[in-house]
Amino acid sequence: ALDDPIRATTVGIVHSSATPAFQPGDWVMGLNALEDYSVNQAGGFTMKLDVSQVDSPSRFLSALGAVGLTGYFGLLEVAKPKPGEVLLVSGAAGAVGSAVGQIGRIVGCRTIGIAGGPDKCRRLLADYGFDVAIDYKGKSVAALAAEIRAAAPDGVDIVFENVGGDVMDATMLNLAKKARIVLCGLISEYNATEKHGIRNLWPVITQQATIYGYLIMDYAARFGEAGAVMAQWMAEGRLRIDEDVQEGLENAYPAFMRLFSGANTGKLVLKIA
Amino acid sequence: ALDDPIRATTVGIVHSSATPAFQPGDWVMGLNALEDYSVNQAGGFTMKLDVSQVDSPSRFLSALGAVGLTGYFGLLEVAKPKPGEVLLVSGAAGAVGSAVGQIGRIVGCRTIGIAGGPDKCRRLLADYGFDVAIDYKGKSVAALAAEIRAAAPDGVDIVFENVGGDVMDATMLNLAKKARIVLCGLISEYNATEKHGIRNLWPVITQQATIYGYLIMDYAARFGEAGAVMAQWMAEGRLRIDEDVQEGLENAYPAFMRLFSGANTGKLVLKIA
Repeated sequence: ALDDPIRATTVGIVHSSATPAFQPGDWVMGLNALEDYSVNQAGGFTMKLDVSQVDSPSRFLSALGAVGLTGYFGLLEVAKPKPGEVLLVSGAAGAVGSAVGQIGRIVGCRTIGIAGGPDKCRRLLADYGFDVAIDYKGKSVAALAAEIRAAAPDGVDIVFENVGGDVMDATMLNLAKKARIVLCGLISEYNATEKHGIRNLWPVITQQATIYGYLIMDYAARFGEAGAVMAQWMAEGRLRIDEDVQEGLENAYPAFMRLFSGANTGKLVLKIA
Repeated sequence: ALDDPIRATTVGIVHSSATPAFQPGDWVMGLNALEDYSVNQAGGFTMKLDVSQVDSPSRFLSALGAVGLTGYFGLLEVAKPKPGEVLLVSGAAGAVGSAVGQIGRIVGCRTIGIAGGPDKCRRLLADYGFDVAIDYKGKSVAALAAEIRAAAPDGVDIVFENVGGDVMDATMLNLAKKARIVLCGLISEYNATEKHGIRNLWPVITQQATIYGYLIMDYAARFGEAGAVMAQWMAEGRLRIDEDVQEGLENAYPAFMRLFSGANTGKLVLKIA
C-alpha cells in the first residue's frame, strides 16, 4: 500500500528476539521490507543462516536463494541430466539461466545458451562457461532453429525454458527423442498483449518429449542441502553467480529501476547497513 | 506407388507357410495391403492372434489394435489415473477418445468428453458412459472454458488431448494442480495453414502441470497383456469399441472416403473375405 515499506526478501542480523529459536547476532533470512529494522512475527517465514559457508551473506539472496536454487532443482531434479546430454538454456545470461548452464556443465552436459545481444553472448562464453552462445536478436524462428541445429545436430535433450515465444518455437524444432523441457518462465509474454504459447507443438508428440511446468516451492524443505552444494561449487571456483550490489536505503529507487533498464548484470541486491 | 495395392494393417488366416512359426489356419495380424492374399517376409511385422478371446477377429484392428491400446497405455501408463480424479478427453467420440473415456470410468475417474455436435455428445453419454458431454462447436475459448469449469469446479486432473487448438486452450484454463496432459493428437492442426499450438501456456507453470508427448510404440511388447484386459472388459460389457464394418474389396474406395465425410462411427474396417 502507498507509504508502506516495500516488501523484499532480506538477509540480516537479529537485533533482539522474544524466542529462544533466534538469538541476537544470528544471521537470518526472511520476507521483510526495504527498511533499517524489521519486526518478524512468530511462525513467519524466517530462517537461520549459516553464513560461514559463503563469502558474503548476500549469497543467500542469489546463489543460495530462490535464483540459484530454482536453477538447481529445475535442472537436477526435474530434468535429471545425464553426462553427455545436450542442455539448451534460454534467457541464459539471466540470474537463473546462468546458474542452470553452469550446473549443467558441472554434471557433464554440453551447454547451449540463448541470449539477446553480443554482450550477453560474450558473457555466456567467458563468464558462465557455455559451450555455445546463440544471439536470438533480429532472427526469424527458422534462422534461429537452423543455428540451434548447427550447434546440436542430434537435437537437444534438455531445454530449460525461461523465455517462451519465438525462441521456444525454434527450440521445439530441435528436440531429441524423449527430450525434457523444464518450463520455468515465459518472460517474452509478461507484457505481451497476445499470448504466443508454443506454436510448434507437433514435435512434442513425434519426439515423445515431456514438458514440466515448474515452480520451486515443492523443494523448500531441501534448500539447506542444495545451498550447501552450491556454496561448495562456488568455493571451488566452479560456479559463478553474479550479484549487482547497490548501496544505501536512499538509493532503493534508482537501484530498483536498474531491473527495467537492464543495467544490472546478476541478481540485484541492495545493501542497507 | 501408383498401381500398388494400398497398405493397411490386416487380420487374416495363414494359407500356407514356409516357417514352423506359422501354420495354415493360424489367425495373424500384419502390415499388408487391401488384397485377397498377402505375402509376408520372414522377420516382417506378423503376429499370431488368439481369436478365442474376442467375438470377432476384427477386434484386433480396433479394441485390441492400435486404436484401443493407444487409449489403454496413454491413460493407464502415461497419465496414471487415481480413483476420483477428473479426466477430460477431447475428440471423445472418436475411436481413441471413446476408449479412453470408458477405461477412465472403469478405473474410477469422473469423465468429461468434448466432441463436436449434438449427435456425438449424445453418444458420449449413451454409448460410452461419460459423466459430462460438452459440445465445442460454435463456442469461443472463453465460453468453452466456462463450460469445463462448471463441469469440473476444482479443475481437471488428467487431459487426454486428441484435438489441440481452441479446445486445448480452453482446457488449459481449467487445470488442477499437478495436472497430467497426455498429448496424443492435434487433429485440429492436420490441415491448418497456421500452427496454433498451445496459447494458454502459463497455467502449465502455475499449476505445475506436465505435458507428455505420447506415441504408443514404446509399449509394443505389452500389446498382448493389454489386449487380454481389453477383451475381458468387452466380454463383461464394460467397454464398447465401435467398428464401422464395410464389405468387399470392390468397396474399398467408398469405404475409405467415409473417413473424410465423417460418416463412420467407430474404427473403419473393410471385410474382404
